[in-house]
Amino acid sequence: MLEPLDFYFDFSSPYGYLASEKIDQLAARYGRQVSWRPILLGVVFKRTGAAPLTLVPLKGEYSRHDFARSARLLDVPYTHPANFPLATQHAARAYYWLHDENGEAARRFAQVLFRALYVERRDISDLDVVLELATRHGVDRDALFAALTGPALKERLQAECGAALDKGVFGSPYIIVDGEPFFGVDRLPQIERWLDSGGF
Amino acid sequence: MLEPLDFYFDFSSPYGYLASEKIDQLAARYGRQVSWRPILLGVVFKRTGAAPLTLVPLKGEYSRHDFARSARLLDVPYTHPANFPLATQHAARAYYWLHDENGEAARRFAQVLFRALYVERRDISDLDVVLELATRHGVDRDALFAALTGPALKERLQAECGAALDKGVFGSPYIIVDGEPFFGVDRLPQIERWLDSGGF
Repeated sequence: MLEPLDFYFDFSSPYGYLASEKIDQLAARYGRQVSWRPILLGVVFKRTGAAPLTLVPLKGEYSRHDFARSARLLDVPYTHPANFPLATQHAARAYYWLHDENGEAARRFAQVLFRALYVERRDISDLDVVLELATRHGVDRDALFAALTGPALKERLQAECGAALDKGVFGSPYIIVDGEPFFGVDRLPQIERWLDSGGF
Repeated sequence: MLEPLDFYFDFSSPYGYLASEKIDQLAARYGRQVSWRPILLGVVFKRTGAAPLTLVPLKGEYSRHDFARSARLLDVPYTHPANFPLATQHAARAYYWLHDENGEAARRFAQVLFRALYVERRDISDLDVVLELATRHGVDRDALFAALTGPALKERLQAECGAALDKGVFGSPYIIVDGEPFFGVDRLPQIERWLDSGGF
């Protein structure tokens, strides 16, 4: 049995969104599945000292230009969120809560969240928006609300972020293929080559 | 007459070196020349708040792994320098001094400097090493020494760095094609596609 690819991302990462639209199909071409692992870049940046991309002088302007350009290159719809950067702890916690019930439903819900943010321009930092999207996705709103406002799920996400840091994850998307790390959506062609040839 | 590509780099940048081994041939396939423009990342990082890649927690380990991996992917020889990161003002100033006499000789000297650092593991932060390499390259050592220790060339490099910042350059390599910016050696395939199709 081939190992799944580990796909680390923050819902607030445009490059993470672009990767999310491609990674499953890419992996499937090589008989692989993908383990989706949302994290909080805020936690990661405390370790690395980095700042949100769009807030960095010069790099911020380039990145806003490049989000749209990369989306065109990948043929993925993209509109820049009105509220950006944004807090994604509700989204990430909802993902893990759902994941423990049904991994495939959680993966599909992650896509719902990403597309709500980057296609429909919904503000998924808002707890009510996450609850609304989850309800439309067939989730019990009251149960999710109770979980999202309790301590266990908060600790769960903290543990996931800590485990990601232990794996060396410093950004989004960060994809690990059989122990080999790749950072950035622009590395998808390299990941494909790696899967195709078993290394380079 | 098609415009040359602007190729900004720091001699201390491994990804800049890798790009330097490919950019002229890539551009030539589309009838383009390349204007090589060494800068100092130290000056750029003062504006952006960034730190040298290898000194960033987690990202540093990844980058050291990725320098060698990217070199294998591009089929370019690479050995990590013993002294790294390193100061490159002598190298960059020598480039511009030579450039004002003979642009093609300067471009070839830039390759001599890059290969001295990343293949032969010479410490090109050392003024004597730059002078030795220049002398072997046919340069008048005394004239270059006088220029490298005078104020004019220092100001010239400062002006080049300032002009690069004005163009939005925040890292190395940073390549501008007809006003379109691309950051990183992993964007070479995108640059090729851009040149081939006139945009995407």
